[in-house]
Amino acid sequence: MARRSEKQDFPVSKVRRFLEPGPVVLVTSRHGEETDVMTLGWHVVLEFTPSLVGLMVSSANHTHDLIRQSGECVINLPTTDMTETVIGIGNTSGADIDKFVKFGLTAAPAKHVAAPLITECHASFECRLADDALIDSRDFFVFEVVKAHVAPEPEHPETLHYLGEGRFMVSGRIIDKRELFTPAMLA
Amino acid sequence: MARRSEKQDFPVSKVRRFLEPGPVVLVTSRHGEETDVMTLGWHVVLEFTPSLVGLMVSSANHTHDLIRQSGECVINLPTTDMTETVIGIGNTSGADIDKFVKFGLTAAPAKHVAAPLITECHASFECRLADDALIDSRDFFVFEVVKAHVAPEPEHPETLHYLGEGRFMVSGRIIDKRELFTPAMLA
Repeated sequence: MARRSEKQDFPVSKVRRFLEPGPVVLVTSRHGEETDVMTLGWHVVLEFTPSLVGLMVSSANHTHDLIRQSGECVINLPTTDMTETVIGIGNTSGADIDKFVKFGLTAAPAKHVAAPLITECHASFECRLADDALIDSRDFFVFEVVKAHVAPEPEHPETLHYLGEGRFMVSGRIIDKRELFTPAMLA
Repeated sequence: MARRSEKQDFPVSKVRRFLEPGPVVLVTSRHGEETDVMTLGWHVVLEFTPSLVGLMVSSANHTHDLIRQSGECVINLPTTDMTETVIGIGNTSGADIDKFVKFGLTAAPAKHVAAPLITECHASFECRLADDALIDSRDFFVFEVVKAHVAPEPEHPETLHYLGEGRFMVSGRIIDKRELFTPAMLA
């Protein structure tokens, strides 16, 4: 798997650029000596500033316990060259194996959280828990993105969007419709 | 704008097929004599059964009041032939104009809710409010999909995925990776 170009700081208020289109992401977590990574399609942008993202992580996942106990995670954005890795991570449990070893992922230290960045991903967003009100009832975690790392190229990474039943939609062409927006809508 | 082929009932437990890839949707609402429609990219699948979906609808939107007061909405899935309509709806307020008239949308009656289906959309999901715990603090509504209407063709409609700043990603090719999944993961 090719290493990505060196990542750069990216404004946390603009991470919707990568998450709102709905890609599958890899969520890394760490608590004590335990590290995990899971494949997730159930996420949502909730606010620009502070930069809030909601994640639905079932309590059946080992990651649920780690992010709940640590109050932290990293949301990593994989691309289509990682398709088999994304599926493999989704088909195994971090309670049984070390997925970083199993799938040959390179962990890099984050700046503000203990969970690692995945070097092979296009982008990594460091997150701290912002609201636990729906964890017990809905397995829904509200996180604040506190730091964003993004590879400068390509501008539009080819991402995976899960349809269920083993099928993915791959991100397609970009269309620019700025001329149809009011200035307020582009702010 | 072309009328879609006659829609058919679709299992509510499988609406993730259309929502998890992250498309822009059109949310319709009705309370008393008022009807509205808004463009929304901030949604998330939360559960298969019951079929739960979370929507972040800012209180700055007229739709917020209508779905809060009625406890109902319809999530409609537009396709790329509706791009200008999707943008126009996002750039105007239902507090000022009747968007169905302004944008030439055809409203069809829903079965279980007062909010209308949009005939021109590929799919429409009738929703009832399931959890109001995060409305006050986060503008986040948890809805249960109680009925799903889907056009049988095309199998993979071309959807819009918003990047911000006036740009959209258009849904691309479908890849089938069923052979890499365990049976439990395909359930």
